[in-house]
Amino acid sequence: MTTPAPQDLGLLEALHSTPARRYLSTEPIADDVIRAVLDAAVRGPSGGNSQAWAWIVVRDPEVKKQIAGWYREGWERHYGSRREQILNAPDDGPMSKRTFLAADHLANHIEQAPVWIVPVLLGAAKSGNPRLGSSIYGAVQQLMLAARAYGLGSTLTTLHIGHEEEVRDLLGLPADALTMAIVPLGYPSRGRWAQPRRRPLEEVVFFDRYEER
Amino acid sequence: MTTPAPQDLGLLEALHSTPARRYLSTEPIADDVIRAVLDAAVRGPSGGNSQAWAWIVVRDPEVKKQIAGWYREGWERHYGSRREQILNAPDDGPMSKRTFLAADHLANHIEQAPVWIVPVLLGAAKSGNPRLGSSIYGAVQQLMLAARAYGLGSTLTTLHIGHEEEVRDLLGLPADALTMAIVPLGYPSRGRWAQPRRRPLEEVVFFDRYEER
Repeated sequence: MTTPAPQDLGLLEALHSTPARRYLSTEPIADDVIRAVLDAAVRGPSGGNSQAWAWIVVRDPEVKKQIAGWYREGWERHYGSRREQILNAPDDGPMSKRTFLAADHLANHIEQAPVWIVPVLLGAAKSGNPRLGSSIYGAVQQLMLAARAYGLGSTLTTLHIGHEEEVRDLLGLPADALTMAIVPLGYPSRGRWAQPRRRPLEEVVFFDRYEER
Repeated sequence: MTTPAPQDLGLLEALHSTPARRYLSTEPIADDVIRAVLDAAVRGPSGGNSQAWAWIVVRDPEVKKQIAGWYREGWERHYGSRREQILNAPDDGPMSKRTFLAADHLANHIEQAPVWIVPVLLGAAKSGNPRLGSSIYGAVQQLMLAARAYGLGSTLTTLHIGHEEEVRDLLGLPADALTMAIVPLGYPSRGRWAQPRRRPLEEVVFFDRYEER
């Protein structure tokens, strides 16, 4: 397999056109590409540069299959059970019908993505610190942006965490480790690189003091 | 003031050359640039696209001065009190002497940065969810990368949180809001855009199963 060269992609263009991609093909990803996106990831922030992290590259079909079952449970519990309600509502909530259907597709096919990255914080299993993620989610964002440069889609998901202990055991993680996400990676099979829809800045940006709007 | 145009910067180059910048000048930042970096920030991930966030642009010198005092307390408690120990140790720990001195400089000059961005999660004040940050730190990383495109340095800091309540009051935030960081923004006055030093991938990347190394 030859390693695809990265696209010559501008930074600002990438920041504005890297939505969650949830329709992913089964096409394999070259090892060099996986390595390149991880090498970009670890340049992200780590509090005190402690880098108490591990990045698990999951490719084993059996491991993916088992976790996928738990992931679907999480999906069903959080969103799937509201299927009719979401699909019959006016399309103005935070999760659009299109996004719901894409996330539903992902839940039912996540094991088909050729590679998952599981970012892990060591020594964090008992943490109740709501800012814990400041030491890894910036790096995860770097991972997803670097993947974009290689034409790979991804999304940050956490629906496996109802089975955190089983996932930890399956991946051989130490008891003090906390899985912070599952990031499925794959070449997109549907959809496009486009600006994620967000509330206008006027609603979320404040100068010096917050005000109810 | 004319608004500086962004640099034509490649994505991968940016991901590999955007370290924390802690020596920042007092030079003002044009409103259009602040708006541009926030517009890139909000394209980052938000769980279920709920966007329960607020982005506070802090420019008021009095507000910065007050928070800076609390920030210095946090710095002193966590690192500053180990000044002699860190500066006299062999330079092989996670925080190099150079990084220590830069962070010490920032603690003593943070109010001079012309703009701080305070990313806030609403409804999160009582959260003990260690993965809470998955809905904002990716966006913060987008902010810091977009700032880079405009020649602005930044760093993600959380040393103010010993005074979370006072900061919340000062910024007029609702009682259920949680400040997730302070990101000082400014044109760098010292140092350079260079690849952050990190452990080699061989130490932190694992295929399918974690192993003690």
